[in-house]
Amino acid sequence: MSKVGFTVVNGGSIVTPRGFTAGGLHCGLKNTDRNDIGAIRCEVEATAAAVYTTNVFQAAPLKVTRESLVDGRLQAVVVNSGNANACTGQQGERDAYAMRAAAARELGVAESNVAVASTGVIGEHLKMDRVLGGISSLPDRVNGESDGAEQFTQAILTTDLVKKEACVAVEVDGVTVHIAGAAKGSGMIHPNMATMLAFMTCDAAIGQAALHQLLKQATDNSFNMITVDGDTSTNDMLIAMASGLAGNRELDAGHPDWEAFAEAFTYICQELAKAIARDGEGATKLVEVSVSGAVSDASAQAIAKTVIGSSLVKSAVFGADANWGRIIAAVGRAGEPVNPDTVDIRLGDIIVLSQSSPVAFDEAEALSYLRGDTVRIIVDLHHGNGTATAWGCDLTYDYVRINAAYRT
Amino acid sequence: MSKVGFTVVNGGSIVTPRGFTAGGLHCGLKNTDRNDIGAIRCEVEATAAAVYTTNVFQAAPLKVTRESLVDGRLQAVVVNSGNANACTGQQGERDAYAMRAAAARELGVAESNVAVASTGVIGEHLKMDRVLGGISSLPDRVNGESDGAEQFTQAILTTDLVKKEACVAVEVDGVTVHIAGAAKGSGMIHPNMATMLAFMTCDAAIGQAALHQLLKQATDNSFNMITVDGDTSTNDMLIAMASGLAGNRELDAGHPDWEAFAEAFTYICQELAKAIARDGEGATKLVEVSVSGAVSDASAQAIAKTVIGSSLVKSAVFGADANWGRIIAAVGRAGEPVNPDTVDIRLGDIIVLSQSSPVAFDEAEALSYLRGDTVRIIVDLHHGNGTATAWGCDLTYDYVRINAAYRT
Repeated sequence: MSKVGFTVVNGGSIVTPRGFTAGGLHCGLKNTDRNDIGAIRCEVEATAAAVYTTNVFQAAPLKVTRESLVDGRLQAVVVNSGNANACTGQQGERDAYAMRAAAARELGVAESNVAVASTGVIGEHLKMDRVLGGISSLPDRVNGESDGAEQFTQAILTTDLVKKEACVAVEVDGVTVHIAGAAKGSGMIHPNMATMLAFMTCDAAIGQAALHQLLKQATDNSFNMITVDGDTSTNDMLIAMASGLAGNRELDAGHPDWEAFAEAFTYICQELAKAIARDGEGATKLVEVSVSGAVSDASAQAIAKTVIGSSLVKSAVFGADANWGRIIAAVGRAGEPVNPDTVDIRLGDIIVLSQSSPVAFDEAEALSYLRGDTVRIIVDLHHGNGTATAWGCDLTYDYVRINAAYRT
Repeated sequence: MSKVGFTVVNGGSIVTPRGFTAGGLHCGLKNTDRNDIGAIRCEVEATAAAVYTTNVFQAAPLKVTRESLVDGRLQAVVVNSGNANACTGQQGERDAYAMRAAAARELGVAESNVAVASTGVIGEHLKMDRVLGGISSLPDRVNGESDGAEQFTQAILTTDLVKKEACVAVEVDGVTVHIAGAAKGSGMIHPNMATMLAFMTCDAAIGQAALHQLLKQATDNSFNMITVDGDTSTNDMLIAMASGLAGNRELDAGHPDWEAFAEAFTYICQELAKAIARDGEGATKLVEVSVSGAVSDASAQAIAKTVIGSSLVKSAVFGADANWGRIIAAVGRAGEPVNPDTVDIRLGDIIVLSQSSPVAFDEAEALSYLRGDTVRIIVDLHHGNGTATAWGCDLTYDYVRINAAYRT
């Protein structure tokens, strides 16, 4: 399947870009036998950039990762699931440093080139014997085969039902560059600067400043535009690593292939973000809200995120109820400039509101559309040129069930 | 039961203050046989004030009520439930004016002294034959007995399970003044300037400016501090009417009994607001979040509302899960100044976090506490002198059930 400027690589993974290996295993942090520790390794020092949660209470691993990333280079990432190592004080920091030291030793890289990430329950100390036992087995598991990527992708999941990954190829200087990513996230999803955990690999040569700038831009149009429940995690982190082994001339915004590369990079971010939204806790469908005609893109973003975050809209979508009154109520409370007389709303292709007046529509057709696995809500404010798209999911009985007893 | 400065009147209602009568009946807007139209009448022109939703899409009745309130005087309120008359265009405005005219005629008061309120489904036109038929029967039903107040209080409910009312007595100039209120609200509750529908009656003499100022202040510390689902309605309206028949010297901020009166007035607002939160759609309990040690009261309010609005916190409370990690995650994403190292959290009397470090607590005791019908979450930031309290409810299967098929 071809997209403008790049090609989706079916079956591709985070080890498709040259230089990367990955793996994962079960060390005993989760009560089930699912993988709970994993690593990505690069055979060279990769150019790297990251974005982090804006939550005031940042988990210990984020502090350690920031430290490793001071020079813009990484060679490995170690990740555990089942425990977020957040709100764990001094002991939590010592544990995160110990994870980094062990991973560096076992994977044969410098400590200062290792990022650490954790996800799971907040406020409990890591069982470090299990973590260190798991890390000592990583060298046997980390490989460049698709199974290595699969084991890593499984190791980062918590309440997720499915793994999230994407891979594309794009031509830069006449050579084929690959960009891939893996992510986790299902609840406490309302990212602000980064989402739960996402890892991108790439074999392009790219300047660190250009990579960081691109990562921020792509995040604003992908991970920062999804919400599952309006709650921003303490552990959100997105790390991108570029090995440079593809052999292209170093990319920056002045490179003739920059646009194609940036588009491909953003595509990976959006695919992972949408996969997180679709796999939102308890979700039965992906909901996409597109807003146009706002006074600015920022205003459109605020409105789209208000609609996608409305519990009433989310419940109505779950019930396949074409209750556009809740959509317009959410638009109206977003705190953004709106002309109350010029709003159009469509559900897919079905027009339900035109110039703020109800339009008679075929209820059976609307029901059929809303029962699909993807629901698009299109709002045109006719009040400017700002546009934005946000992604989320429906609110279901299972969301409540999952979260009424997550910790216990 | 005595509170500082005023007395709760058990069995009191909106007709307890001198001069007020009320009533309600079923006219056919609801599919059930529950009351769906009602009115309050005052035997004199009452000093009146109102606050309204800040949603951009304000329903037609709000426009008509604002017009009636231009001179700060009202003598009657007519209310229907089952249809919000919101997003109904020009026809909706004509219908709201027609409701006002019919109520004025039937209740024998001037049109410009009648407020109109509606609540229910958004985007459908009122069945005016039923509305007008109902209004023509109101004179037979409006009376000063407790049954009249009961019928009115029932007539304003939608998905509410219980009626909400409160009444207090307070001494002003040595005479007993009564303040009472009735409210409805269960979903789309995240008020900003006013909540769904609430009506207050009072027999004190009070200046219009003083009444309006007090209403705004009391609203900020009551209705504006509750949330059920984060959604702000298009129809929120709170109207206060004071008949002046108690015989006191006109109240204003300089009156020696002002503090006692204001305290009593605020108490009514808080009782009604808490009753709305406790009766939130699908709710099994009232949740109260108190924040202290913030940099300002406004900052404490923002944090308290973020915690009370968190779907994850609400789900955990439903599951009686002492998952304080979600509470601190919500505190941390509120966008307010917080010292990440100095936060204490209590669930009732149970300390779960001290100076941002986990405290071992008795899980059985916490479970028992969280299974109660009122859950208090107390957050002390140790970062200033700002305080605030917010009220909400748990997020349950029934919330999803109710809202997955509200319209159909």
